[in-house]
Amino acid sequence: MRLVDRLLSTIDRITPPATVHAHCDLPCGVYDPAQARIEAESVKACMEKFNGSDDVVFKSRAVFIKEQRADLVKHHLWVLWTDYFKPEHLAKHPQLPDLFWKATKAAGETKKTNDPLVAQGLLDQIAEIDTIFWATKKG
Amino acid sequence: MRLVDRLLSTIDRITPPATVHAHCDLPCGVYDPAQARIEAESVKACMEKFNGSDDVVFKSRAVFIKEQRADLVKHHLWVLWTDYFKPEHLAKHPQLPDLFWKATKAAGETKKTNDPLVAQGLLDQIAEIDTIFWATKKG
Amino acid sequence: MRLVDRLLSTIDRITPPATVHAHCDLPCGVYDPAQARIEAESVKACMEKFNGSDDVVFKSRAVFIKEQRADLVKHHLWVLWTDYFKPEHLAKHPQLPDLFWKATKAAGETKKTNDPLVAQGLLDQIAEIDTIFWATKKG
Amino acid sequence: MRLVDRLLSTIDRITPPATVHAHCDLPCGVYDPAQARIEAESVKACMEKFNGSDDVVFKSRAVFIKEQRADLVKHHLWVLWTDYFKPEHLAKHPQLPDLFWKATKAAGETKKTNDPLVAQGLLDQIAEIDTIFWATKKG
Amino acid sequence: MRLVDRLLSTIDRITPPATVHAHCDLPCGVYDPAQARIEAESVKACMEKFNGSDDVVFKSRAVFIKEQRADLVKHHLWVLWTDYFKPEHLAKHPQLPDLFWKATKAAGETKKTNDPLVAQGLLDQIAEIDTIFWATKKG
Amino acid sequence: MRLVDRLLSTIDRITPPATVHAHCDLPCGVYDPAQARIEAESVKACMEKFNGSDDVVFKSRAVFIKEQRADLVKHHLWVLWTDYFKPEHLAKHPQLPDLFWKATKAAGETKKTNDPLVAQGLLDQIAEIDTIFWATKKG
Repeated sequence: MRLVDRLLSTIDRITPPATVHAHCDLPCGVYDPAQARIEAESVKACMEKFNGSDDVVFKSRAVFIKEQRADLVKHHLWVLWTDYFKPEHLAKHPQLPDLFWKATKAAGETKKTNDPLVAQGLLDQIAEIDTIFWATKKG
Repeated sequence: MRLVDRLLSTIDRITPPATVHAHCDLPCGVYDPAQARIEAESVKACMEKFNGSDDVVFKSRAVFIKEQRADLVKHHLWVLWTDYFKPEHLAKHPQLPDLFWKATKAAGETKKTNDPLVAQGLLDQIAEIDTIFWATKKG
Repeated sequence: MRLVDRLLSTIDRITPPATVHAHCDLPCGVYDPAQARIEAESVKACMEKFNGSDDVVFKSRAVFIKEQRADLVKHHLWVLWTDYFKPEHLAKHPQLPDLFWKATKAAGETKKTNDPLVAQGLLDQIAEIDTIFWATKKG
Repeated sequence: MRLVDRLLSTIDRITPPATVHAHCDLPCGVYDPAQARIEAESVKACMEKFNGSDDVVFKSRAVFIKEQRADLVKHHLWVLWTDYFKPEHLAKHPQLPDLFWKATKAAGETKKTNDPLVAQGLLDQIAEIDTIFWATKKG
Repeated sequence: MRLVDRLLSTIDRITPPATVHAHCDLPCGVYDPAQARIEAESVKACMEKFNGSDDVVFKSRAVFIKEQRADLVKHHLWVLWTDYFKPEHLAKHPQLPDLFWKATKAAGETKKTNDPLVAQGLLDQIAEIDTIFWATKKG
Repeated sequence: MRLVDRLLSTIDRITPPATVHAHCDLPCGVYDPAQARIEAESVKACMEKFNGSDDVVFKSRAVFIKEQRADLVKHHLWVLWTDYFKPEHLAKHPQLPDLFWKATKAAGETKKTNDPLVAQGLLDQIAEIDTIFWATKKG
């Protein structure tokens, strides 16, 4: 058995207990609901541009650019929910599972409408998540 | 106001009620937990290849390819959870939020270890999701 | 010359003969035509949704979501053809090169039409590939 | 010539003057240097995790996750520089071209080192860009 | 039935025959084997950098950056093979299916070794494809 | 402290001076303005296809495929500007910052119009960059 491999397998045997209980993917530990909020603001802006335009080509660009932005909102929310939040947060904030489920569903709904109220509802849910997030940061 | 635009805005006014209550993103309506399962099998296989190899370059490739596969597992699970499952499913299967949260966290944990038991645990959770998924399909 | 580097170059000198003849990219060895099939079912569903809708915005979403799904079909088929299938499979199933060429071209064609028959033709070709795939698995 | 096409071409003939002079891609008009800052904080955190770890597998994960984060920093900075900033901003802030060039090069350098000072230098340049960005927003 | 929809469905009924027989995805008609060649040159350069370096972190970066470049080589070759080449080209150049199969497999092999000869072999196959490609362009 | 880790940290201490002053991301050293030019030719072709078509579905596909191609043009130009070009090039070719800024902005503008003259203007700017690029290669 080679030296490098012996070292690798040794380290491997030693580290799992530590890593298996970690809660983010590197873990690098950097999270910020602002990432979801910024993309959601873009979703809302795309709707307003869509509604304010007479150009059928522009309107179709607004629709698929909004689609991509809404996907990013969902991705950033999923990462927060799966990687950042821990059981102890859930104990303090039992509304989190439902809040994230509804917020990500709302992000999906923004793809299907150009009603800015739907995007505003998403932004309100992200603001609620943001408040809880920073509360957990303060501990 | 142009004709096309008048048509667009008319259609827009009429469709939101329908679309706002839809639950998948097109909606195309095609979902299958097999997508998550296949990537999770790849994650487990990468761990076994890692453990069975003497080649330090191969081992590092196994680590970052596993990382990408685990990201796909998370993505496919998130899509199922957010886009496919509806409140009526949740009423029948109250364990769903916790099951998806743990499964996606397990997918994140597979990035941090090369212990195939962690990948097997992920595969078991996906199998549980798969059973519920097909039960909801039968109605 | 450093120890780690000496180990790396030693291992490097030893492993190429083995890896150069391997046929998948890690190799993790996990393949499943279901990945292409699921995306192709989504392509067909997008066409049916397109044909069944009165909403010009929804119709354009169906078109570009279908485009993305068709790209995934092509990708999954290419990976099967390039990474999974080996010369010995080709010897037993000489129709494979033409079958994959036509199936991937059919996937491209589904982007240009909303005729579900074109998507069904693609699904039939994927089913044919699936049959051969599992036959090669049994050896 | 079909009605829809006639409408499309008419609108096309009319809109270019307006769109050709627009400066962001939809334009949705939402920009925020926080996107680059958050990824750069992640880059710095990856370096610190790399330096603080004994696990050779974890260290290699830190390296390639940092690589991806640094790519996102570059992307977000490029978008700000190309899509948000306009000639009138450049007139008021002549240091912008050099500042963005150095900041994106610094982001590239963070891939090649695990010295947190290099990441901090990048964060300082992003902070400088952030100050100018918000000054231009106030007009 | 709405006017726009009637127009859409009319156009739909009329266009399939044309589009179903088209051979590239928009079709935009722009292809160039240089895209695959440039990425393959990068793959070879990554190997040389890997072999010429003493830095274990740099060496692992070379490995995963090479992996990404090799994926791009495969993608560009697949697009050429599936989207550009037509049955009439195949009739004139019967070696094409085997040439593309071997070239894409060679691209996969460059991920598993740091032997520049393997990358050179890939470059030679791309050069062969390039010669045939431009011959078909002259008609 | 483990042997591998000691080696890693030793190498780390030694290499930064060298890498911090490098100017491309691996560095693999392979760059070619042809990558931006090929995507820009595709952008122009998409516009011509858009203008030459009566099919409203095809026209919307042309618009979003063009959008993706224009993004690739921007990406390839950004990489050239940030990763390839060095202060000494800037000293010899002081027009570079403005040329790249305008070319990437022109790429953004091609998303908003179907006027091939805008795409041709982009191609002309890429040709100018190409001339300078190869001049710097000759030294």
